[in-house]
Amino acid sequence: MTSSVGLERVLEPVGVLPQAAWRLDASPEIKQDEVRVRVERLNLDAASYRQLAEKHGGDGDAIRAEVLEIIGTRGKMHNPVTGSGGMLIGVVDEVGPLSPLGVKPGQRVATLVSLTLTPLRITDALRGWDGRGEQVPAEGTAILFGRSIVGVLPEDLAPELALAVYDVCGAPALTDRVVRQYANPRVAVLGGAGKSGSLALAAARMAGARTVGIVRDEREAASLRGAGVADEVAVADARNPVEVAAAVGEPATITVVCVDVPGCEHGAILATAAGGTVIFFSMATSFPAAALGAEGLAADVTMLIGNGFVPGHAAFAVDLLRRVPAIRSLFEARLARD
Amino acid sequence: MTSSVGLERVLEPVGVLPQAAWRLDASPEIKQDEVRVRVERLNLDAASYRQLAEKHGGDGDAIRAEVLEIIGTRGKMHNPVTGSGGMLIGVVDEVGPLSPLGVKPGQRVATLVSLTLTPLRITDALRGWDGRGEQVPAEGTAILFGRSIVGVLPEDLAPELALAVYDVCGAPALTDRVVRQYANPRVAVLGGAGKSGSLALAAARMAGARTVGIVRDEREAASLRGAGVADEVAVADARNPVEVAAAVGEPATITVVCVDVPGCEHGAILATAAGGTVIFFSMATSFPAAALGAEGLAADVTMLIGNGFVPGHAAFAVDLLRRVPAIRSLFEARLARD
Repeated sequence: MTSSVGLERVLEPVGVLPQAAWRLDASPEIKQDEVRVRVERLNLDAASYRQLAEKHGGDGDAIRAEVLEIIGTRGKMHNPVTGSGGMLIGVVDEVGPLSPLGVKPGQRVATLVSLTLTPLRITDALRGWDGRGEQVPAEGTAILFGRSIVGVLPEDLAPELALAVYDVCGAPALTDRVVRQYANPRVAVLGGAGKSGSLALAAARMAGARTVGIVRDEREAASLRGAGVADEVAVADARNPVEVAAAVGEPATITVVCVDVPGCEHGAILATAAGGTVIFFSMATSFPAAALGAEGLAADVTMLIGNGFVPGHAAFAVDLLRRVPAIRSLFEARLARD
Repeated sequence: MTSSVGLERVLEPVGVLPQAAWRLDASPEIKQDEVRVRVERLNLDAASYRQLAEKHGGDGDAIRAEVLEIIGTRGKMHNPVTGSGGMLIGVVDEVGPLSPLGVKPGQRVATLVSLTLTPLRITDALRGWDGRGEQVPAEGTAILFGRSIVGVLPEDLAPELALAVYDVCGAPALTDRVVRQYANPRVAVLGGAGKSGSLALAAARMAGARTVGIVRDEREAASLRGAGVADEVAVADARNPVEVAAAVGEPATITVVCVDVPGCEHGAILATAAGGTVIFFSMATSFPAAALGAEGLAADVTMLIGNGFVPGHAAFAVDLLRRVPAIRSLFEARLARD
């Protein structure tokens, strides 16, 4: 077990798992059960990119310089402020003889584990990126451990589209699983027009739930109405609990939080019926705010930390995209804007 | 709804719930649905007290001064670093005519909502406290909103004992609920010799689970063995994932995290079987570390944010204490040490 989770790549502090490490060994030589990927593109986590963009006032050169510095220092793209990373796509370069991942050299793949635990070396100084947007063209190498998750890119989707879907594919899979635990549930999704939010709505609808999408403005509301996955769409500031509860109306059986800004915990809890479930997918979620918020509101709700891994999650999300063309259009429009 | 959750007590920023607020109005005049309590004792959250003690190198005067400053500035005991608070006991002083809490003036009660959302005013400068320990004798007033949780103190328990039990009573109640969702589960509790940990073990055992308690040293192991609620007891550093997984052995169906230090997420995930559940009760839990850790380990586990409220949780915990005298002794010994 020890080598397959990447313990040998941890430089500092020794003995922790790669995600918890301050610094990894990103050297390109692979061990027996590792895979080396030639990097083509990074997809930064939304919360991470937002933090960097706000810190540098949108100055692309400064954002690029800080991303390079983080990767150079830590051996991985692990934003020390948000604690989040992202994903990457690339081409399989070399496969260790003991790797269980089932990939072959030459295959184009997306890594479905976070960049926060993926040894990464950049060799082109990110010259192809203007620092404006989460999608980062890049050259370099990344390492996958034995115990990892990787998806071969589907041939009917552009790589950028597949990456954007894979990045959030835990959300629809877990939403589907939770919806099926309730009879006739009503599902509210905060941030319903975003990537994880629209897929969560589509999954809930496919599983038979009534759905309400909460979005931040009329432009997003129009976009979500067009996608046809929400029975109702309402506008509210997700950080304002009273506004959120009013927008959701009848308390939701399940509330899914897909808004990447801090302070959405209390609205989600207040909008959820007793006996219901809140699924937190935003990396901006505060554990104490959620735990103490539910207690403070005397709210008997189950609160789930959105796990980025559910078996079959990547194929499930790609299947949703194929079955709901409006969601595919929504993703493509978002990618075109970025 | 708006007044009953205390929105009118929020001074800064306006519009958020009291727990999220920077500053509350702690004035002693009550509104129609509020209750005023004459404070006798605060019980600081363990993570909060630990942070203060470490910051001030155990200097009791400095710790006391900072607690006073936090309460004076924020109108509540809400540690800005840990985000946590604690609880209090006192005597009901005045009950608004519209309060639904069902308490009467003169009753000795414990507040079962966090101090992070309880308007609090201290009038004795905490003169009776030496700053060394989580139990803080205090004079002043606290306010309970309409939607709140309060427990009248049982007559067969010392107030300090009841407060210590109420402080962690969400843990055994939620553990009981989760254990009953599995057939023949094995439950591991990290921090099994502590307050929430020993009650969680007792609840798991009562619900029919096999139990293993993980503790930090031989002294705690001996104490937990004496309590008789763990089928197995093992020593491990909860922050070391490899050590934790080895100590738990056969992967646990349910792992309960009751260790109030950062960095215990990965060990808990690694020690849990596929399809199992991790319940995080420590306020030191990092949301991104848990979410990304599970993904990075390709771990199909359900991760619960420990909710401090489960209906009937206070009575359930007190009942456990009465049925398992060894747990009561363990609590009393811990209180005597503090």
